Amino acid sequence: MLHLNAFLFGCGHHSAAWRHSSSRVEDLGDIGYYEELARTAERGKLDAVFFADGHSVRDPAGAGTWFLEPITALTAMARATSHIGLVTTVSTTFYTPFHAARLLASLDHISGGRAGWNVVTSMFDAEARNHGFTEIPARAERYARAEEFVEVALALWDSWDGDALKLDRDGQYADPDGVHSIDHVGKYFRVDGPLTVPRSPQGRPVLFQAGASGEGRDLAARYAEAIYAVAYDIDSGAGYYADVKSRIHKAGRDGNSVGIMPGLVTYIGSTMTEAHAKKAELDALLPVEQSLRQLGMYVEQDCREWELDAPVPTLPPVEEFTGPHGRYETILRIVAKDKPTVRELLGTLAAGGGHATMIGTPESIADEMEAWVSGGAADGFNLMPPLYPAGLEDFVDQVVPILQSRGLFRHDYAPGTLRDRLTEGGTR
Amino acid sequence: MLHLNAFLFGCGHHSAAWRHSSSRVEDLGDIGYYEELARTAERGKLDAVFFADGHSVRDPAGAGTWFLEPITALTAMARATSHIGLVTTVSTTFYTPFHAARLLASLDHISGGRAGWNVVTSMFDAEARNHGFTEIPARAERYARAEEFVEVALALWDSWDGDALKLDRDGQYADPDGVHSIDHVGKYFRVDGPLTVPRSPQGRPVLFQAGASGEGRDLAARYAEAIYAVAYDIDSGAGYYADVKSRIHKAGRDGNSVGIMPGLVTYIGSTMTEAHAKKAELDALLPVEQSLRQLGMYVEQDCREWELDAPVPTLPPVEEFTGPHGRYETILRIVAKDKPTVRELLGTLAAGGGHATMIGTPESIADEMEAWVSGGAADGFNLMPPLYPAGLEDFVDQVVPILQSRGLFRHDYAPGTLRDRLTEGGTR
Repeated sequence: MLHLNAFLFGCGHHSAAWRHSSSRVEDLGDIGYYEELARTAERGKLDAVFFADGHSVRDPAGAGTWFLEPITALTAMARATSHIGLVTTVSTTFYTPFHAARLLASLDHISGGRAGWNVVTSMFDAEARNHGFTEIPARAERYARAEEFVEVALALWDSWDGDALKLDRDGQYADPDGVHSIDHVGKYFRVDGPLTVPRSPQGRPVLFQAGASGEGRDLAARYAEAIYAVAYDIDSGAGYYADVKSRIHKAGRDGNSVGIMPGLVTYIGSTMTEAHAKKAELDALLPVEQSLRQLGMYVEQDCREWELDAPVPTLPPVEEFTGPHGRYETILRIVAKDKPTVRELLGTLAAGGGHATMIGTPESIADEMEAWVSGGAADGFNLMPPLYPAGLEDFVDQVVPILQSRGLFRHDYAPGTLRDRLTEGGTR
Repeated sequence: MLHLNAFLFGCGHHSAAWRHSSSRVEDLGDIGYYEELARTAERGKLDAVFFADGHSVRDPAGAGTWFLEPITALTAMARATSHIGLVTTVSTTFYTPFHAARLLASLDHISGGRAGWNVVTSMFDAEARNHGFTEIPARAERYARAEEFVEVALALWDSWDGDALKLDRDGQYADPDGVHSIDHVGKYFRVDGPLTVPRSPQGRPVLFQAGASGEGRDLAARYAEAIYAVAYDIDSGAGYYADVKSRIHKAGRDGNSVGIMPGLVTYIGSTMTEAHAKKAELDALLPVEQSLRQLGMYVEQDCREWELDAPVPTLPPVEEFTGPHGRYETILRIVAKDKPTVRELLGTLAAGGGHATMIGTPESIADEMEAWVSGGAADGFNLMPPLYPAGLEDFVDQVVPILQSRGLFRHDYAPGTLRDRLTEGGTR
């Protein structure tokens, strides 16, 4: 069975989404907007909704990437829904484990066992400079801290036994022998414990990770119960999938119990033409000059004179490219797979960057998704609609019923926690 | 006009409350319990509900002081109510200002301008040992950090101008000139800003403080917009009131705009006898041996042989007492004012300690409250029902109507934010 998350992100994952007439840009500070999105996702029986997080304002003029703090937003959304999981990003570089464990355990209680934690180490100097650093610590340092952080959080969640609360009016509130210190003293943290929050419905909220680097993949392999991935095409998806499942195996865990969910941008129309028109409509809202300038940095050429509606000029192979390879390889993959015009390429890059992008009818998209799963590239997807709420409604109302009719997705929620949901039906 | 907060605290402020047959001890992890309390407080037109906070488990066997993390709990409660303020305690010793400012601004958005922050510096070694310290920093150090913390939080809240968001689909999302760095570099914090959360409905969530020490009173005088106080009788209340209002004046602010709200424990009956019976019922649930041992430490005598239902034996005057004076003076005040039996004294100490305690009919309690206000000891009260939910329901249904009929309390909410609510009608 597939697993599907809705990755909530401002007005949508296309950077021009907020300019679209149907965007809810006026409501980005209104919790009712996010509650509606969560209810739509729950109508589609999705496993979870998910918030990324950032600790700096990148470009106030350009787009409303961040607005509400995600844990508070998800807490309200928990009360507006009954079944769907609620996954928040918490940075191990900027938080400390007692705060994080406490907030997440509280969300797990409030949601009745639906909390998840996407473990990230953050990456921008501008974020670090809001938290006492002058620049972001080096990757090795961040991952060493992340590992200690996760260990402390897990220990804090385990500090109350499941049966420690007695609530015996004539006797004990709790059994002191069931409430444990953790007495952690490590390189980064000193935490005595126990947690102030008694054991939550899931005990440990579900750990998500999105490891891309070697360090990230190893952290995911050791701790994650579900993994967000980035892959533009099925080949790169399958490569990532095989590598991470092998790392999970090497870490002594069962790869089948850890779902891998690549990000997925979808443009859904009743015909292919209508689907492409939806993308073109958003792409037309991009600021051209700025987008071409940015593309020029990615490909290390002056693109300002490129013809917008002509095919992308031939680009040198990656071996001849002297700049950073990651983004450039993605561009080569997009050009090879889709043969886009310059404007279409700008739009694809503006919506999810290097994430899988499927443009088509509900049937063709269901076919592609099925091909990823049967091709060993995914256990599910982290849905990244280019435009909220319309893109999520399209997916829920048009693609989900097809996945259900093919036996690939649940028809309704079974009782249980987010962890139960994610392991329902197993993964490959 | 009076200002009234409901100080939410587990099953109630009496330490034996959870043992009472009507307590909701089974629901301490159920957000629905707190939502109901908030709705009850809103039915009584109270200004706000308030959570204290602690970062360590004091006595797992004894009582469920802490359970849910307060910011997440208040976020859910915000969605279950429409008018009432939501005040959370955030420690400046354990948090950092970017996290705190972000969480509070998000709560202010989610609640539509009803967020308040009770600024505390925390005090227990056991709490510090969950946050990287080996012991709690000295008071002067804590207050120096608190002052810098508050300044950074205020600057972050001011980092987005009120009109910075343009949301012009054909132009700018926000005006970059309306979004400011704060570039703070101080002794404790380095924060570039701006905040990731655009300006919230109140701009700055309302600052509460509960300064008791000189440092605390000065911090309150400089920053607080409302002050929680501890005073057992009207004389000590008036002393605190005059001192703090004078400090506010010396800090260059208008004392009339800052309400002082002593904590208030109420036992409400249709007769005095019934009210005293309510207290006796809770007092009878106290573990006697442990309570007498604790009293022995407070008064530096062996109290284990004291007759429970006899008057408290004569205690030496404070000048002859060699232990810490604060708690001992409170005990002398309780004995002088109420002439309690030993068991009654144990019960009074077990419910709010040194806070004002009013036992009587709705009319007699309204009279006492009015006497505190006209006697220059209070601008309102921080209600501390010994037993939730019954004690809050008694107050809302029986005392509030009398205060309303005397013109001392609002009949309904006017539109507006928590700040509007707290300054409505002014203070003395």
